[in-house]
Amino acid sequence: MTEIRYTKLLETLPATVPFVGPETQERARGEIFSARLGANESVFGPSPKAIAAMVQSASDIWKYGDPTSHDLRNALSARLGVCSENIVIGEGIDGLLGYLARMLVEEGDTVVTSDGAYPTFNYHVAGFGGRLIKVPYKQDHEDLDALLQAVKEHDAKLVYLANPDNPMGTYHDATAIEAFIEALPKTCLLAFDEAYVEFAPEEASPKSDKIWPNVVRFRTFSKGYGMAGARVGYAFAPRDIIREFEKIRNHFGMNRAAQAGALAALEDNEWLHAVRKNVSKARDRIGEIARNNGLDVISSATNFVTIDCGREGAFAKAVLDQLISHGIFVRMPFVAPQNRCIRVSVGTEKDLDLFETVLPQALATARSEQG
Amino acid sequence: MTEIRYTKLLETLPATVPFVGPETQERARGEIFSARLGANESVFGPSPKAIAAMVQSASDIWKYGDPTSHDLRNALSARLGVCSENIVIGEGIDGLLGYLARMLVEEGDTVVTSDGAYPTFNYHVAGFGGRLIKVPYKQDHEDLDALLQAVKEHDAKLVYLANPDNPMGTYHDATAIEAFIEALPKTCLLAFDEAYVEFAPEEASPKSDKIWPNVVRFRTFSKGYGMAGARVGYAFAPRDIIREFEKIRNHFGMNRAAQAGALAALEDNEWLHAVRKNVSKARDRIGEIARNNGLDVISSATNFVTIDCGREGAFAKAVLDQLISHGIFVRMPFVAPQNRCIRVSVGTEKDLDLFETVLPQALATARSEQG
Repeated sequence: MTEIRYTKLLETLPATVPFVGPETQERARGEIFSARLGANESVFGPSPKAIAAMVQSASDIWKYGDPTSHDLRNALSARLGVCSENIVIGEGIDGLLGYLARMLVEEGDTVVTSDGAYPTFNYHVAGFGGRLIKVPYKQDHEDLDALLQAVKEHDAKLVYLANPDNPMGTYHDATAIEAFIEALPKTCLLAFDEAYVEFAPEEASPKSDKIWPNVVRFRTFSKGYGMAGARVGYAFAPRDIIREFEKIRNHFGMNRAAQAGALAALEDNEWLHAVRKNVSKARDRIGEIARNNGLDVISSATNFVTIDCGREGAFAKAVLDQLISHGIFVRMPFVAPQNRCIRVSVGTEKDLDLFETVLPQALATARSEQG
Repeated sequence: MTEIRYTKLLETLPATVPFVGPETQERARGEIFSARLGANESVFGPSPKAIAAMVQSASDIWKYGDPTSHDLRNALSARLGVCSENIVIGEGIDGLLGYLARMLVEEGDTVVTSDGAYPTFNYHVAGFGGRLIKVPYKQDHEDLDALLQAVKEHDAKLVYLANPDNPMGTYHDATAIEAFIEALPKTCLLAFDEAYVEFAPEEASPKSDKIWPNVVRFRTFSKGYGMAGARVGYAFAPRDIIREFEKIRNHFGMNRAAQAGALAALEDNEWLHAVRKNVSKARDRIGEIARNNGLDVISSATNFVTIDCGREGAFAKAVLDQLISHGIFVRMPFVAPQNRCIRVSVGTEKDLDLFETVLPQALATARSEQG
């Protein structure tokens, strides 16, 4: 029996993990996945210029990275139209959400999110003792009115909104988002997760130079820029909020090659444009495959397509299990009624050929199992 | 005036940064450093096999890294002689120390360290509201008896010890360390930082398969393995302690290429052996340069040499400033009486040629300035 005196909070935390990685599943299966379509990674990869920058940095990796990520923040500043003092770089949006939770959440504080939205946000909030209020989705969209009402009713310090949303892939347009922000009490900070913004139509996002006193906007190089494994996310917000991140973040947490890669990726607009086109084409194809199997899809503004399997969660889970057992890594929403769906990340043509082959079998088996 | 409701603790934290990076100094100087000898990085770089692994991973960077770092933990398990369940990988020792502070420190809790030891540990402890008790060094060594006494006197939850020490480069032998651990109350956890262990004589370190119920041992790929920019540290400890890390860490925080690089680095013993020899040679040369200038050095078990400038802190600071103004990035201890010294990381022959040329001028100028 240990005599170590952990915090009272830590003792109450479950041994939970937001996501089980595909590698863990592969080891359990004893076989590598044939198609990796479960984590909304970008199969089209990063810009060749980003790869070249990372390759070049490899022999320089004996040096710590610049703890201020000066060059990357400057480039983002020019891109977004905000000052570099409005930007903080972190170990993915995950890392930055962890810092934000730490900045705001004391034990018992109320935090609002949507039921079935990003589990890693919930993990961090719970990890600092926050009390999560979860409001239902409405027609597969995060419900702005309900979020606002919950914030007011529970006097929440912090609210989470992803736009476009994950796991449903839907979005609200900038007008609706801005109205939501304007209506939000100034005592409540919005963690505004725009991880998928590069795939969304322009109307989905407030102008990038828009800074509100109580909004932190999160973006990443993991999705559109194809660098999930590099762990480069960023947040932009008023300077006084960014200064609070500086008080607690792991200043030497950023990989040097990742910083160089992100900088090069940001400069390659042509590549991003091509990725967007590929993603759009692949989304269409996933929709077609689904419809050919009698299934609906949720219209997506992301690099994944959420397929409505048309029945209860157990059925979608059976379909998912079948896909996985045929070597296709996919995931599904955790919460009803969204868990009637499976979520398929955009893949290469070869990935989607396999998906096209396997889906009918998966559905047939699931139907026979589930009656 | 913001209405955002930060934690009470955050409001009390200063806007402090443990270290200013050389890049920030270079931008202020308007000139790149000619020799980078201030951060105890390994100028000899990582194993070519590690570089090759990172280069190969660059095009795979669209995939998230394995959040369990399974392969790297397995390899470390074999190397250390402990189970992989005894190991957690993190974003450098810095990241892991942050997690440990979070696991133990509640506001007002007492934590013991040496006065002038690792500032990033202090940063994390303060960041969770801990009260730091700092005991003086004794003859340029961390003072084991004083640390133990302070732990008992203040009923500390947590104590920090680096062996070999930074910034002095001294060490206690394994017998002394083990006696310290045995005498430590079981209610106090020891954060045992072995960042420099690869450079130390064998007698400096308890056997790597030694696990105590209240000790977390920290090691890194930043120093001996020459991968500071990759951000790969690890901790090993009893399973029940490692499980607590799992409750709070950023599970997807590790860079994929960095994991692959660390794995390859670990397997290249020949390279590590060559680095050790180079470090030993360079240490000798720094000592020789210092003695040729009438200065003493502290005997070092690390990849840096701490040079005693023989006078008060202001003089050492003047020498440091002169070295910096001549393009040599070096650092110095923060706290008296250690701040009579400057700390010079091991460099290439070219780096040390420059140091040899500049040091006499730096000393002369400092002497004329300081009288």
